[in-house]
Amino acid sequence: MSDLNSRLMTLLPAWQWLRKYNQAKFKSDLLSAFIVIAMLVPQGMAYAMLAGLPPIMGLYASILPMIIYAMVGGSPTLSIGPVAIISMMTFATLNPLFEVGSPVYIQAACLLAFMVGVISLLLGLLKFGFLIQLISHPVIKSFIIASALLIALGQFKFLVDVPLKANNIPEFLLSFWQYIRYSNIETFIFGMLSLCFLIYMPKILSSHAVQSRIGSTAFISKALPLILVVASIAAVYFLNLKEIGIKTVGEIPSGFPPLSMPYWNMDLVITLLPGAAMIAMISFVESLSIAQATALQQRSDLNSNQELVALGLANLSAGLSSAFPVTGSLSRTVVNADSGAKTPMAGVFSSLLIVLVSLYFTGFFRDLPLAILAATIIVSIWKLVDFKPFIETWRYSKADGIAMWITFFGVICIDISTGLMIGIVSTFILLLWRISRPHIAVIGLIEGTQHFRNIQRHHVLTSSKLLSMRIDENLNFLNAHIFKGFLINAVSHNIDLEHVVINCSSISSIDLSAVEMLEDVNAELNKLNIKLHLSEIKGPVMDKLQHSKLLKHLSGKIYLTHFQAMQQLSPDVFQ
Amino acid sequence: MSDLNSRLMTLLPAWQWLRKYNQAKFKSDLLSAFIVIAMLVPQGMAYAMLAGLPPIMGLYASILPMIIYAMVGGSPTLSIGPVAIISMMTFATLNPLFEVGSPVYIQAACLLAFMVGVISLLLGLLKFGFLIQLISHPVIKSFIIASALLIALGQFKFLVDVPLKANNIPEFLLSFWQYIRYSNIETFIFGMLSLCFLIYMPKILSSHAVQSRIGSTAFISKALPLILVVASIAAVYFLNLKEIGIKTVGEIPSGFPPLSMPYWNMDLVITLLPGAAMIAMISFVESLSIAQATALQQRSDLNSNQELVALGLANLSAGLSSAFPVTGSLSRTVVNADSGAKTPMAGVFSSLLIVLVSLYFTGFFRDLPLAILAATIIVSIWKLVDFKPFIETWRYSKADGIAMWITFFGVICIDISTGLMIGIVSTFILLLWRISRPHIAVIGLIEGTQHFRNIQRHHVLTSSKLLSMRIDENLNFLNAHIFKGFLINAVSHNIDLEHVVINCSSISSIDLSAVEMLEDVNAELNKLNIKLHLSEIKGPVMDKLQHSKLLKHLSGKIYLTHFQAMQQLSPDVFQ
Repeated sequence: MSDLNSRLMTLLPAWQWLRKYNQAKFKSDLLSAFIVIAMLVPQGMAYAMLAGLPPIMGLYASILPMIIYAMVGGSPTLSIGPVAIISMMTFATLNPLFEVGSPVYIQAACLLAFMVGVISLLLGLLKFGFLIQLISHPVIKSFIIASALLIALGQFKFLVDVPLKANNIPEFLLSFWQYIRYSNIETFIFGMLSLCFLIYMPKILSSHAVQSRIGSTAFISKALPLILVVASIAAVYFLNLKEIGIKTVGEIPSGFPPLSMPYWNMDLVITLLPGAAMIAMISFVESLSIAQATALQQRSDLNSNQELVALGLANLSAGLSSAFPVTGSLSRTVVNADSGAKTPMAGVFSSLLIVLVSLYFTGFFRDLPLAILAATIIVSIWKLVDFKPFIETWRYSKADGIAMWITFFGVICIDISTGLMIGIVSTFILLLWRISRPHIAVIGLIEGTQHFRNIQRHHVLTSSKLLSMRIDENLNFLNAHIFKGFLINAVSHNIDLEHVVINCSSISSIDLSAVEMLEDVNAELNKLNIKLHLSEIKGPVMDKLQHSKLLKHLSGKIYLTHFQAMQQLSPDVFQ
Repeated sequence: MSDLNSRLMTLLPAWQWLRKYNQAKFKSDLLSAFIVIAMLVPQGMAYAMLAGLPPIMGLYASILPMIIYAMVGGSPTLSIGPVAIISMMTFATLNPLFEVGSPVYIQAACLLAFMVGVISLLLGLLKFGFLIQLISHPVIKSFIIASALLIALGQFKFLVDVPLKANNIPEFLLSFWQYIRYSNIETFIFGMLSLCFLIYMPKILSSHAVQSRIGSTAFISKALPLILVVASIAAVYFLNLKEIGIKTVGEIPSGFPPLSMPYWNMDLVITLLPGAAMIAMISFVESLSIAQATALQQRSDLNSNQELVALGLANLSAGLSSAFPVTGSLSRTVVNADSGAKTPMAGVFSSLLIVLVSLYFTGFFRDLPLAILAATIIVSIWKLVDFKPFIETWRYSKADGIAMWITFFGVICIDISTGLMIGIVSTFILLLWRISRPHIAVIGLIEGTQHFRNIQRHHVLTSSKLLSMRIDENLNFLNAHIFKGFLINAVSHNIDLEHVVINCSSISSIDLSAVEMLEDVNAELNKLNIKLHLSEIKGPVMDKLQHSKLLKHLSGKIYLTHFQAMQQLSPDVFQ
């Protein structure tokens, strides 16, 4: 039996919690599912619209992917589905290729989800989960802030009902200047009222007076978008607002999501590939960082490759069920956990409730104004636009700060995917830059100790016969020249010199370029009758140096500690 | 007076040696110049041919650039002029654009030299000399070997007199298969005889019997190409070899190199830019590494930015005097130094002698067979094709070895510039790869000492309450995840754990992603009632951490030494 168990667990991680399922868990999971779909229905439709797709696809995107993730994913509370940034990236990928909302556009969105699924699945199966490390925190933060800004601006068109573009800020400003005179004032007023409702109601609800009267208002706050949606549908229906120019969602087909392989051909796949790769990367980063937050608490090591596989299958199923790329949603995951979800079954229940909605309640959303969905997106996304991280990062490290600004301007001035790419590449360049400028110090002995410190910062003991140096970086082709230059400079200022000792305590690796540099330096110093010594070489470095000519040709010796070297080479100064 | 001196030295480094010039130096410089031009005349013409240009341009390329470098360059013996690899790169850049040898091709070669000059000059003036570090030794070595192979193959067409192509090996094999049946057998025999002469004569000359009779044969060996050139011209002239199909250099215009700005337009400049940048880079690498070899001996620090400026001006002058890109030649520099050149005046004399040749002796070279020039190139270049470095490098480091093979196959399978680019990029990726896989160890105390070592390699003292770790790499976004994963894994295997101590002695920098990882880990461990401590943080790292929240939120303490930490946290085990 236990053998069967372990085999089932490998094939289907869900077996782990399914076999311990009971009535208590069922109740809390179901309750949590109801709360989550109150958020999910308006969010799903709004994010579909953000991606330039019919709102119903936002519901489709929450059905199969959620069930699939529950079966194979590693996090019990992660809520998979449409997410603002991924929707925005979908839009940015497809918008230049097809007319927004056209049948080919919709088919391409499904294909994109399918491709994101294939990429994630392959990376996961090939154990490429470590690729996530390529994106540094400052770049991610900056990417999210800049994307949020663009997303909020991109929704502005629904508030004024003119075709503003928002792939980047210059484009937005240009189209704003061109079209703003044609805006629909009724829609604008309607939209602004919704915005105010969404912004100020939570503040009113959380004020002391209200709280004391009706108890906890957390759930009501979360359901505000749904309340607004219902109220606005009623308003449009009863006040006949469509006649004054308020645009609505329109007829939504009801029923199960149509299951089919999205239309594809090789050219289209190649065109979509860069976009799909970026979406796969960001959806993985998003999803994993949310899932990881819960992992350590349970002393369970979240397997990043398995998460990639789960995310890949979820996106594959999205592509096959007429939906668009999905990932883990931070807001819904938090709500899911807070409202008591115990197992992934909560996700399955949410998914089943969404099926009910798309089977029987789509007609209800026909009169939902687009401006309301836009207001929902703007309010939820605007919280992310926060420039404090820029200041904090800059204060900690200029390099990280520069990477942040490069990403930010790349995203808002070019487009969301290109900006991210530029940001990632900039962090690599900045890292290589830092490696190429190592900290090198001439060191001397602090009297009465065996510690050596920078002669420029501390009052230390030195000998004119002896030059003793330390480099605080691994030696490689990027900094070997600098080290040699520093050494030549130090030698040429010192006529009495007999010995150079390099303290290797900070060196964890030496590449061939650096070894050859040391060989050169050793040979050249030898001609000047100066001996080169090394001290405190680490084990793995020493293992490698055995394969080089350096140790054979070294004019001096290798010392275990720097203090020993000093004592032996200049016993008159260092006792 | 001394003020005037120092000002002159800044503007014109040549002033330093010019004012101390005397008759003795004059004599040795002049002698050395005669020896160098015995090499330079055939080499210059051969390398011009290699670049797909008329042989006379090889002489032009040795006139102005050499004088200019003598005035502003930093090395007294560096011999500037046409060089095989740069000629090959010139060919690789221009060949896809224009018909080889046509007037536009020749104009473009001058423009290329001019652009290489401008790029080098700008980089030098803006103090970008450090860019040279971007190329690792293994990549340079592999690039030179692969280029030498291509160059030798490229000359093969002159030995068989059919239009073989050799931008890469597949192309060469294809054209070989197509054309070899049309080859000219007389030219082939003539070429093979020359090859044998150049290969075996030095061996015969250096054999003991000959040496004892005529003394030192070093100079004769160096002059062999010139002897062959003269002999073959005589053979062609007196035996009328042109009638049996031996192709010769043909009419060469005599006179000074025409001075003019090369024809240019913006489109052409943009097309040539990548090639010019690669040539500037390689000519700088070549030139600087040759110049540096002499610099340390004189305890003089060669300024890489000044070398860039000198090389830039030399190439500018090449572009303006109907020549093609130039750089320092290793073979001629060695001969120059060996034959007693004392000052850069030797270069000036060589240059003046070349002027005499191009004024009065060009007619003499009319009957020089192309196969002879090709043989000269093949013999001089074939010495560079040596696969020992591949084996040695592989033995020292797999990463360096991989970079070498990538460069090699990039060059021989695509083309010389693309291959170099791929090689350079591969070293960056491999470096980032190594950083992303740091060596992390759980460490314990070696009894009776204060030293800590890897618990898997040594017999050490540990405590079950205490996890003590060391990472042998700077912490950044590339390895923060790995470190966190390692830590989570180590923690989850240890139920009694109360303290985690990270030994930071190998960490010289921590980026923001890694600080945030540590903050996360600290918070998560704290919830499990495990305290996080840090030990042996370096000064500069500590300075930076002051700006982060980590130190404020740290659940544990910061210890000066790891031993102190162990003693305080688990006094029962570590006394």
